[in-house]
Amino acid sequence: MSNLHSRPLPLEQVQVTDAFWRHETELIRQAVIPYQWEALNDRVPGAAPSWWVHNMKAAARAVAAKKAGGAYVPRHRSDSIVTQPPEGTAPDPDAFYGWVFQDSDGYKWIEAVAYQLMIRPDAALRARAQQAVDMICAAQEEDGYLDTFYTLTGRERAFTCLKDHHELYCFGHLTEAAVAWHQATGQDDLLNAARRFGDCIARRFGPGRERGCPGHEIAEMALIRLYEETGEEKWRHLADFFLDVRGVDPSTFALEENARRQAQGQAPLPVTAERYAYYQAHMPVRDMREATGHAVRQMYLCSGMADAARINGDAEMRRACEALWRSVVDEKLYITGGVGATHVGEAFSRPYDLPSDTAYSETCAAIGLAFYARRMLQLELRGEYADVMERALYNTVLAGMAQDGEHFFYVNPLEVDPAACETDTRLSHVKAERQRWFGCACCPPNIARIVSSLGQYIFTQTEDMLCVHLFIGSTVRARLNGGELTLRLDADLTRDGKVTLTVLRGEAEGAIALRIPGWSAGGGFQYPKTAQAREENGYCLIRGVWQPGDTIQADFAMPVQAVTASPRVRETMGQVCFARGPWVYCAEEADNGKDMHLLRVCPGEAANAQIIKKEIGGLTVPALCVPGKRVRVPADAPLYAPWAPPASEDAVITLVPYFAWNNRGKGEMRVWLPVTR
Amino acid sequence: MSNLHSRPLPLEQVQVTDAFWRHETELIRQAVIPYQWEALNDRVPGAAPSWWVHNMKAAARAVAAKKAGGAYVPRHRSDSIVTQPPEGTAPDPDAFYGWVFQDSDGYKWIEAVAYQLMIRPDAALRARAQQAVDMICAAQEEDGYLDTFYTLTGRERAFTCLKDHHELYCFGHLTEAAVAWHQATGQDDLLNAARRFGDCIARRFGPGRERGCPGHEIAEMALIRLYEETGEEKWRHLADFFLDVRGVDPSTFALEENARRQAQGQAPLPVTAERYAYYQAHMPVRDMREATGHAVRQMYLCSGMADAARINGDAEMRRACEALWRSVVDEKLYITGGVGATHVGEAFSRPYDLPSDTAYSETCAAIGLAFYARRMLQLELRGEYADVMERALYNTVLAGMAQDGEHFFYVNPLEVDPAACETDTRLSHVKAERQRWFGCACCPPNIARIVSSLGQYIFTQTEDMLCVHLFIGSTVRARLNGGELTLRLDADLTRDGKVTLTVLRGEAEGAIALRIPGWSAGGGFQYPKTAQAREENGYCLIRGVWQPGDTIQADFAMPVQAVTASPRVRETMGQVCFARGPWVYCAEEADNGKDMHLLRVCPGEAANAQIIKKEIGGLTVPALCVPGKRVRVPADAPLYAPWAPPASEDAVITLVPYFAWNNRGKGEMRVWLPVTR
Repeated sequence: MSNLHSRPLPLEQVQVTDAFWRHETELIRQAVIPYQWEALNDRVPGAAPSWWVHNMKAAARAVAAKKAGGAYVPRHRSDSIVTQPPEGTAPDPDAFYGWVFQDSDGYKWIEAVAYQLMIRPDAALRARAQQAVDMICAAQEEDGYLDTFYTLTGRERAFTCLKDHHELYCFGHLTEAAVAWHQATGQDDLLNAARRFGDCIARRFGPGRERGCPGHEIAEMALIRLYEETGEEKWRHLADFFLDVRGVDPSTFALEENARRQAQGQAPLPVTAERYAYYQAHMPVRDMREATGHAVRQMYLCSGMADAARINGDAEMRRACEALWRSVVDEKLYITGGVGATHVGEAFSRPYDLPSDTAYSETCAAIGLAFYARRMLQLELRGEYADVMERALYNTVLAGMAQDGEHFFYVNPLEVDPAACETDTRLSHVKAERQRWFGCACCPPNIARIVSSLGQYIFTQTEDMLCVHLFIGSTVRARLNGGELTLRLDADLTRDGKVTLTVLRGEAEGAIALRIPGWSAGGGFQYPKTAQAREENGYCLIRGVWQPGDTIQADFAMPVQAVTASPRVRETMGQVCFARGPWVYCAEEADNGKDMHLLRVCPGEAANAQIIKKEIGGLTVPALCVPGKRVRVPADAPLYAPWAPPASEDAVITLVPYFAWNNRGKGEMRVWLPVTR
Repeated sequence: MSNLHSRPLPLEQVQVTDAFWRHETELIRQAVIPYQWEALNDRVPGAAPSWWVHNMKAAARAVAAKKAGGAYVPRHRSDSIVTQPPEGTAPDPDAFYGWVFQDSDGYKWIEAVAYQLMIRPDAALRARAQQAVDMICAAQEEDGYLDTFYTLTGRERAFTCLKDHHELYCFGHLTEAAVAWHQATGQDDLLNAARRFGDCIARRFGPGRERGCPGHEIAEMALIRLYEETGEEKWRHLADFFLDVRGVDPSTFALEENARRQAQGQAPLPVTAERYAYYQAHMPVRDMREATGHAVRQMYLCSGMADAARINGDAEMRRACEALWRSVVDEKLYITGGVGATHVGEAFSRPYDLPSDTAYSETCAAIGLAFYARRMLQLELRGEYADVMERALYNTVLAGMAQDGEHFFYVNPLEVDPAACETDTRLSHVKAERQRWFGCACCPPNIARIVSSLGQYIFTQTEDMLCVHLFIGSTVRARLNGGELTLRLDADLTRDGKVTLTVLRGEAEGAIALRIPGWSAGGGFQYPKTAQAREENGYCLIRGVWQPGDTIQADFAMPVQAVTASPRVRETMGQVCFARGPWVYCAEEADNGKDMHLLRVCPGEAANAQIIKKEIGGLTVPALCVPGKRVRVPADAPLYAPWAPPASEDAVITLVPYFAWNNRGKGEMRVWLPVTR
């Protein structure tokens, strides 16, 4: 069974050569990673402090003091989710500051650096990351505990608020970073730190010990990754435990809350799980059928569940993963690949509620969706999973980052009027411009780690099949049935849908599966005469004995399409958006002037769209010019009048890929455009 | 100059006979007023307590104790806007509970009762109101101060938080009630209470004394009414003072806030007015050009400003009133006559931001708009003012009340999906069903007082002109140039636009002005041959010597109209609503099934609409049947797909007057319907 499941390839085996994506990965390497290091060190003028280095160093001193036999007395016993120095006072060098999950920022940074080192060695960057790794190791307590919040605010309270205090979340990110660092450098230092913290956790939680599970998921997928890296069974068992405990009565979240209430003489709450939908802890995970609650949490949980379904062959778990996928993709997904429609709880809204202007669509949630989709692809080769993964990566994930690598979107609306979001508190979560480093800086380092590990989304493989999910120019080295092949994937989706896969070196027998993208009618595949091909579930599987010079060619049609949403979606009634290949387009004020709600398009004009090259933020992107209309607003138009066909004038509407918006100053933006009558 | 200005007639001179409106005024008399009395006494099971009688009685005991020479020691020194008994404890009979403005609820009730008594004497009702009046008089302190919140929580702090503590607001409502009670009964008891409180206020605030103005306006128009009732100049001077101080640097709101901050050792805030737009205290009132902030406050301020412009002949004030009117009517008015588009601060949003589903559109704000419009009509006879007044009264004001007289809307959305407002905290202010008495019960008694005083909105008069603003069947007695006329207005807008005005008794020379409603193309007026007619500003002015048997007839066309909003309004792009005469229509689930966003109409079908009678909540209303479409949703419709013309089937869409919605159980509702392609 398990050999049907594919796995990503080590990043050293994939070299991205694609002009477009190289630009993005180099932006991460040259701008984002150095900038984020400055941010972790609180050296970015005008940006909210991260406190990461501060907290690590403070914790290291506390740990050293304890090791030297002293009893460490915490400065503050904060229970708050976020702590800042009191206004007007200097920070206490020994106090914890920032969000309770602040440790994870640096872990994500190390993970991104590790991927970059696998792509291309860089001694200076490695030395810098080594500094961070050393800081982390120094902050680990003697029993393996590693979370600067509790080390600095009262270790005896550790693990008593799993629901909100993110220790297991930080553990998950530590583990992700540790595995990547181990893969990149061969070093055990961070891996051992993760193992020691994992052992510390497993001594407290597990079958026959205390019940508990993460308030913010990620440990599940991280533990399975640690298991897959080390072969140590105990990590998959801990992941299983966390998944099995989740959402089961009596709720561990209620029990820990009641313990605190009891200490304060308050009456206990009911211990049923149903109140915890925000945390996806409202029912057993195998029973879940609808994506609910905090969107990033839900996506990370789904990723862990898909991993668990894969390594355990757990059919019930897989059914839940598939049902949750349907809930997301059929009812709760933005056309831009974003999820989480409401800022209330940064959460999934009800089915088909996909507002454009008040959208939350957090960058991290789109990243989480790509994690989930990749893991569903590992479970089953199905084009739909790759289609959604591609849509998230090419649109919302990339939109999270400015082309200067120093400004970021946390929230990704589909319609922006800067005047509205700057004055209307109903839109206070929507920013009309990317911001510098956030205090709660989950998104920027998350973009860095997914873009740096892009190779793991382009290809996966089983023992006898190489799967090509994304058409991103690259070279790949893979072993198929014992034979090693080096192949070159030629593609440039900024231009067209022509794809060529060429065997450069080696020989092997096996299958090569090329995705047939959902946005294309088909590829007209060409392959060696000796090979056999069949199309299945959105992939073309070509089996043969591969030798240097063999090629597979496809030419996926990339027409400009006018896309409409299901009539179940109230928000987009009577509107269309334009897409071409993986790109979803938007109109910006920079090209189309103000009051873009007056623009009208005829969907049939998609066929007449002109594709032009546009330079945005140092990157050449394929833009569109579509014939349309602009409704005229007579100067004396009354607020209400008997209906008459709206007068309009011809207008050429310029559209740019969504990810590239807001790289030319502040202005209106909209993805959906009303249809002309 | 002033004889150009019209005034409403005493209510005894107007008898409403109109079947539709009699139903509503009788509902107020027979259901709302008795129910509200029970509410003021905290005797409505399941409703939030009002605490009105409780507070009055507690204050009366405190006042009696002080008069007996004892020092009264308040139980609580709450600064909170709302106080409730601590959970699980019995109310303290001597404590203040409820909102700081709770006194006003009973004042509004007395005012409504007074109007009802003017319409038709009722000894039992009068006796009940007398009880309330006596309670109020007993709660008045020896120096005239009358506000149970400060009497019970610390009188020494009175008048130190005009911005938020509503003392002057309560004074305003007391004065409105006192004048109405005086007019209805001839009694001075409540009028003297208002005068004594007014004197107490005027000893503290005024030219050469302390600066200050109401945080929630109403005292302005109430003082002018008191002046007009008593002829005492001091009241108009106090109104002028409040208007002149408002929004002038240094802001009195900032100064009082700084006094509190100083007492607590906090740094002072800037004393510029600009921060106080929520209170319409951000600039001098004569400079105001845009309706901003809390909508009820803005409407009450405009009403007071229009009164002041009228009695003072203040051209600058009038210009501001006219500019604010344009701001409301051209940019910020719902088609239903509601104002205040955002729940954030219950406030006006930016121009053209008129969302349907998240609308606030508070019932009290529509009532305030009718106040404002009536006062603009008094300043200048202009059809537009009456059109807006009529729209507010026939739609949002009436929608505030169920046909059982015991359930009320505070918020009046133009689109409701019960499933959404019950689960989505972004819509938590929107109720899918009318509620019983609210803790903050401003709206229900406000509906009672405006509907009970309807006669003052149908007619106004100058010395030689009777103005007919609304076509509501009634009889009216008016003196024109010394002659007395009794006239009958025959009209039934639920049926058609035929209007007949017949002189029943008396003889007089003068003009009769009939409004030409904005929803009609004209009236084809017929009048005695001896009379002279001319049309001006939306009125037909007919001058003559009037004798019994003289008639004026008009037949206003009342076609069903498809109405569209300006393309500046983003929310309603591509949608129309239907209106006929004064009624705005909506579609309800009860008639049209669920998922009404799938309905489509062709605006041209307005001409083919069938007018039918429908019984809703004991009232026969004119409903519409309009040919339309319902978009088909294929069971397997994907969330996104290449655009294709939507498939739909024919549907007859039933529309009911907006005010009547939600009298047949909970369900979807929408005013605006998308236009077919």
